[in-house]
Amino acid sequence: MSRSGIITLTTDFGPSSPYVACMKGVILTYNPRAVLVDVTHGIRPFDIRAGALALAEAMPWFPPGTIHVAVVDPGVGSDRRLVYARFGEQHYLAPDNGLLSRLAQASEPHMIVAVEDPTLWLEPISSTFHGRDILAPVAASLSLGLDPARLGRSQSSLVGLTWPEVVALPGKIEGAVESIDDFGNLVTNITAAQLVDCPRDERTRVACDEHETFGIFQTYSDQPSLTLVALIGSHGRLELAIVEESAAAMLGVRVGERVVVTW
Amino acid sequence: MSRSGIITLTTDFGPSSPYVACMKGVILTYNPRAVLVDVTHGIRPFDIRAGALALAEAMPWFPPGTIHVAVVDPGVGSDRRLVYARFGEQHYLAPDNGLLSRLAQASEPHMIVAVEDPTLWLEPISSTFHGRDILAPVAASLSLGLDPARLGRSQSSLVGLTWPEVVALPGKIEGAVESIDDFGNLVTNITAAQLVDCPRDERTRVACDEHETFGIFQTYSDQPSLTLVALIGSHGRLELAIVEESAAAMLGVRVGERVVVTW
Amino acid sequence: MSRSGIITLTTDFGPSSPYVACMKGVILTYNPRAVLVDVTHGIRPFDIRAGALALAEAMPWFPPGTIHVAVVDPGVGSDRRLVYARFGEQHYLAPDNGLLSRLAQASEPHMIVAVEDPTLWLEPISSTFHGRDILAPVAASLSLGLDPARLGRSQSSLVGLTWPEVVALPGKIEGAVESIDDFGNLVTNITAAQLVDCPRDERTRVACDEHETFGIFQTYSDQPSLTLVALIGSHGRLELAIVEESAAAMLGVRVGERVVVTW
Repeated sequence: MSRSGIITLTTDFGPSSPYVACMKGVILTYNPRAVLVDVTHGIRPFDIRAGALALAEAMPWFPPGTIHVAVVDPGVGSDRRLVYARFGEQHYLAPDNGLLSRLAQASEPHMIVAVEDPTLWLEPISSTFHGRDILAPVAASLSLGLDPARLGRSQSSLVGLTWPEVVALPGKIEGAVESIDDFGNLVTNITAAQLVDCPRDERTRVACDEHETFGIFQTYSDQPSLTLVALIGSHGRLELAIVEESAAAMLGVRVGERVVVTW
Repeated sequence: MSRSGIITLTTDFGPSSPYVACMKGVILTYNPRAVLVDVTHGIRPFDIRAGALALAEAMPWFPPGTIHVAVVDPGVGSDRRLVYARFGEQHYLAPDNGLLSRLAQASEPHMIVAVEDPTLWLEPISSTFHGRDILAPVAASLSLGLDPARLGRSQSSLVGLTWPEVVALPGKIEGAVESIDDFGNLVTNITAAQLVDCPRDERTRVACDEHETFGIFQTYSDQPSLTLVALIGSHGRLELAIVEESAAAMLGVRVGERVVVTW
Repeated sequence: MSRSGIITLTTDFGPSSPYVACMKGVILTYNPRAVLVDVTHGIRPFDIRAGALALAEAMPWFPPGTIHVAVVDPGVGSDRRLVYARFGEQHYLAPDNGLLSRLAQASEPHMIVAVEDPTLWLEPISSTFHGRDILAPVAASLSLGLDPARLGRSQSSLVGLTWPEVVALPGKIEGAVESIDDFGNLVTNITAAQLVDCPRDERTRVACDEHETFGIFQTYSDQPSLTLVALIGSHGRLELAIVEESAAAMLGVRVGERVVVTW
């Protein structure tokens, strides 16, 4: 296993929660040289989908050997599994509740192991905070070189979630708003690759709810302030934005809203 | 003094305040190898009690030799003291205004020293930001091995705050909601040890304000969604939660509300 | 170029945005030993002035050789330049849109270079996230010792913004509220040096909007709770505060409001 020494954290604990620091304290107790990076702690409580998207968004930018710990865990203490999974050279620890399903949609995991050897955990463990008591010490041990196979039995699959499909027809692509960033930009599930045949000029119409815009631009500032603009965003997917304003707030659009591209 | 190189920060500056970065810049100027961990910067302004609880919550999870800097300091620039205190192998720097009183309720400090030697501080110091000008350089110096006895004169006690007492009677325990986390869970001051004689089944009633629930469960998911549930939380204390929802929001309960357990 | 290994980040991405982690992942891919410090990610979207003030506020507290990356970038993907600038021993990377204009108001930059050599960037770059694709790898390369002159052509000036001037007359100084911190304190552009002739006692009147207070105090707690007080704050500038409350909320004052000191 390649090692970067980096451990990232993605949770729904809230950006000011001391729970995050508790996990960091445990990790640093086991591995004082771990490099900790917060992906986000602002996932809405129990919003597994949003957590899954944040993990997928951060993944391409971390060096090989990074360990990503994710805790959005409404079933903590129940019989839901905790799992280790490897995607490419990135390592993940999470409850097996769909949090890794967005990554699994893009590529097959190379290895899945149940996290079930209690000798690697804190003692005693609570029933309500497995992020601190199980995943934090396990992440630290992996960062020190522990073989993931030591964590428990190999698994054949991860719990999945149904992700909205993109439907591509001649001259028409249908998708949906999948996430909304803090600028209020509407990020869809339609990839640049899926739009390769679609002209970038005003022959192309992008519609969302009752709103429409024509053309697919390079960047926000290609259009004047307050204009609704479609572009390929930094995620490599179609994005709807209002220049220098929040599209989400101005259009009243939410995650899940259908987006239709026609030309 | 054992040293971990870790310095934690707990303040009421707000999660986006550049004031936190100013403190970190000063610490890293003195000790470029310090490992900085945020406990929280979301303490409500001047809420010394909330700061004291956050410190107590984070404490058990950090390695020996960690230095915790806390700044909730309505009296900055007045004649309130700044203090160093050691609890077990954890080191604290804070205004002596009750911020350390929750730790002191659980265990006696091993050492208390006034922070009063200005040769260890920034020059000149402001009258309104002693966290940056005094505590940050002092924390960094301690992390480099400075003997805490060098900071100033030894002190015999810390400023205390009155913390609500738990009253235990035969078949009845009375306590209070002490903190509310970002999930809206109501964390009480009643410890697991105080509940050792209390049955876990429906013979036990837990009441808070006009709300009641029966039994003490292992974890949230032992009950269906939207159910009020009592359990021993990850703090090792009695907690009231609404499964997959915010108990604080749904019940309208605040910190200080009385909680009564009867069986 | 002196090097501290520290890279700070100042953005308008929002405190919970995974975009920040994407930048950190890129930086750590290039330089696994970089020490990352968040200045703030809570700048209001596209508020270049607020970003410029946060940079100026953090600057004095970081060690020589620190690299500051700032991304408040409404013109991303347009023909606005990205620049490197050195002020004293502090290094900056930012869009050249006024983000560095507050620093430039206080002192001349020692060196300005356009960031234009694409061999130092990620490949391919997006049109909407140059912080991740250009500034992050460039910052990491500088932290590893790259000569800033290698980034591109030398520039003679930075894009400026007009900052409100302080007008000093005999017995009268006029300035403005320039920023508001998370305590609701109103921080003005009037420096301690500009107030050197002004008496500290009740002969001096400080007025803002329809509100007034007399005297300039050392610290908040020099006056009772809920009192409007004027003092020299930790920024070294005149500040208006309400003791233990938010002056911004209680007075309804915003950034830009005129402040007049008379004696």
